[in-house]
Amino acid sequence: MCIFCKIISGEIPSAKVYEDDFCVAFMDIGPVNKGHVLVVPKKHAETFVDLSEEEAGELFKRVNRIAKAVKKALDADGLNIINNVGAASGQEVFHVHVHIIPRFENDGMKFGWRKLQYVGDEIKEYAETIKSAIEG
Amino acid sequence: MCIFCKIISGEIPSAKVYEDDFCVAFMDIGPVNKGHVLVVPKKHAETFVDLSEEEAGELFKRVNRIAKAVKKALDADGLNIINNVGAASGQEVFHVHVHIIPRFENDGMKFGWRKLQYVGDEIKEYAETIKSAIEG
Repeated sequence: MCIFCKIISGEIPSAKVYEDDFCVAFMDIGPVNKGHVLVVPKKHAETFVDLSEEEAGELFKRVNRIAKAVKKALDADGLNIINNVGAASGQEVFHVHVHIIPRFENDGMKFGWRKLQYVGDEIKEYAETIKSAIEG
Repeated sequence: MCIFCKIISGEIPSAKVYEDDFCVAFMDIGPVNKGHVLVVPKKHAETFVDLSEEEAGELFKRVNRIAKAVKKALDADGLNIINNVGAASGQEVFHVHVHIIPRFENDGMKFGWRKLQYVGDEIKEYAETIKSAIEG
């Protein structure tokens, strides 16, 4: 059983903030900022793309509710809401989880966001490739 | 009108990959990796926490569908799915948008994820504060 399944079953303790039939939310023990919460569907699935569209919708209804509460409770200036899919993205626990990270002016956290540039028609070619895949 | 509202209305061109009554998805012109898509609700709202739970659910049903397509179309090893709330989080356009960023082994992108530590009962205190806010 994976570590999050053990947290869900209660075999491993956690600081829970929310629970319903579909999901649990608990404090990340190694937070980017204090107050960092994880929202986790109870049903084991490795990543967000292993969920159905309906399950994704249900998950993010909860994320929305909990994000509002985190922002308000901690009087945060902002939030990063992040889901990582796969080891290449930084995912460490292979059970779907959404990070809700409270952010504050001058909190010293810098995501190393970079901006690459498309050349010529490249952006259109990427768009066509993705569009075709969406249309299936 | 905000820049994303102008893209939605067609006043500003974009490389669209998806559109329905609720949202549009188009290529980020300054991508973290090529293939980086933004999913944007048509109705103007500044941030994810300005959406209702229902709207958040509808948005992430689309994000799920499009994320699966991005991963498959580009044969990506992973994805970062990110929503930034507020300037303190890195949000630059104040119209809700979800980033779907394809990730590849050794793509040179490092999010500067840090892990702080809680001291004593601090984690429980944070959990209680957030739990109370969720319960409203």
